[in-house]
Amino acid sequence: MTIVMYDLVGCDDRRFSPHCWRTRMALAHKGLEHEVLPTRFTEIPKIEGGRVKTVPAMRDGARLVVDSWAIAQYLEETYPERPSLFGGPGGEQVTRFVQSWCGAVLHGGLIGMIVADIWQHLVPEDQEYFRTTREKRFGRTLEEVQAGREQRIEGFRNNLQPLRMTLKDAPFLGGEQPLYADYLVFGAFQWARSISSLRILADDDPLRPWLERCLALHGGLGRSVPAGAA
Amino acid sequence: MTIVMYDLVGCDDRRFSPHCWRTRMALAHKGLEHEVLPTRFTEIPKIEGGRVKTVPAMRDGARLVVDSWAIAQYLEETYPERPSLFGGPGGEQVTRFVQSWCGAVLHGGLIGMIVADIWQHLVPEDQEYFRTTREKRFGRTLEEVQAGREQRIEGFRNNLQPLRMTLKDAPFLGGEQPLYADYLVFGAFQWARSISSLRILADDDPLRPWLERCLALHGGLGRSVPAGAA
Repeated sequence: MTIVMYDLVGCDDRRFSPHCWRTRMALAHKGLEHEVLPTRFTEIPKIEGGRVKTVPAMRDGARLVVDSWAIAQYLEETYPERPSLFGGPGGEQVTRFVQSWCGAVLHGGLIGMIVADIWQHLVPEDQEYFRTTREKRFGRTLEEVQAGREQRIEGFRNNLQPLRMTLKDAPFLGGEQPLYADYLVFGAFQWARSISSLRILADDDPLRPWLERCLALHGGLGRSVPAGAA
Repeated sequence: MTIVMYDLVGCDDRRFSPHCWRTRMALAHKGLEHEVLPTRFTEIPKIEGGRVKTVPAMRDGARLVVDSWAIAQYLEETYPERPSLFGGPGGEQVTRFVQSWCGAVLHGGLIGMIVADIWQHLVPEDQEYFRTTREKRFGRTLEEVQAGREQRIEGFRNNLQPLRMTLKDAPFLGGEQPLYADYLVFGAFQWARSISSLRILADDDPLRPWLERCLALHGGLGRSVPAGAA
């Protein structure tokens, strides 16, 4: 039975969820045949009999797994003969720190620079849901949150220094080959790339070759989707 | 033959090098008998026939290994039957990211808040060497660099958020037990603790229990040395 994965989608087939990108890359890394079901925000409560509150979610036969980390762990345990996502138990553990860093620094920094761009690339029903929930969270309009991002991009780029230092010595965070740690970071870049014209990296940023390598992985999966501002 | 490790020392037996702490914790983690030789900055050119430019350095029989990361790798390869520092090849690889983060965020943030405190805890010959080389690097006096640290501590504490997020789920970055990733971070805290009265963490910081656990490891090794401002 083919694995089914629910992937967040906006208008115009935009695939912007950084968490869904983690799962898409993990499934490709494992070489597992699977079907990707594009799912809008307001459709999530209707899938899997209402048992899913967030995507990514994945069904593998009788097993439903929700949350990108839980999916990665499930795939690693269930398909140990396939290429490893973590490279052993220590890798799995320490990758949690990379995930935390992505949440605090990458997602935390990017959301304020692309949140109105996300809204721009949603279907109308999702726009209303997104604006209401996010403006409540921020206490400001999406446009106010995003305003002045040109002044914040430099600080964000400075925060990427640990990536640059690590990638001086190897093509991927995983070493010669990518590991799930790469997909965690790559997901954040895909988030911005899929719906925004914001240039996350300067032209001469040494992270660019790593990003290009990630975009080329698994048959160019990351590059196979619409990108940039509509 | 007992392993010999060269450990940076200041006046009054201060053991302040964050890189040396990584090695001390790694040797203890492996349970390897070893002798720690306190070494002042200006003594380094005299050890091992002038073949060592930085500490930590370690001699294991005929083998001389310099640099904390090289030592950790050497110990892992040479003593695989002892408790692992990385928990597998993926762990070793992803730990490089933690090391980069420590360098950029922890060391990069702390040095500007404790550099004059370090100078205070050196013997006179080392004080001259340290002031000359560091003031050249910063282009300012050590006291100017350190001034106003009270205004910077809050930003530094905010940058620790990825640690807090990770340590919500487990007692150590390594999971139920510490790995080298913990020692990387712990070394930075020991750096400050050994020579400064600066309170790195607020009283209610959720990182405190982790720090206490690290201080208690290996017979309370981290707590066995002089600490605080003289």
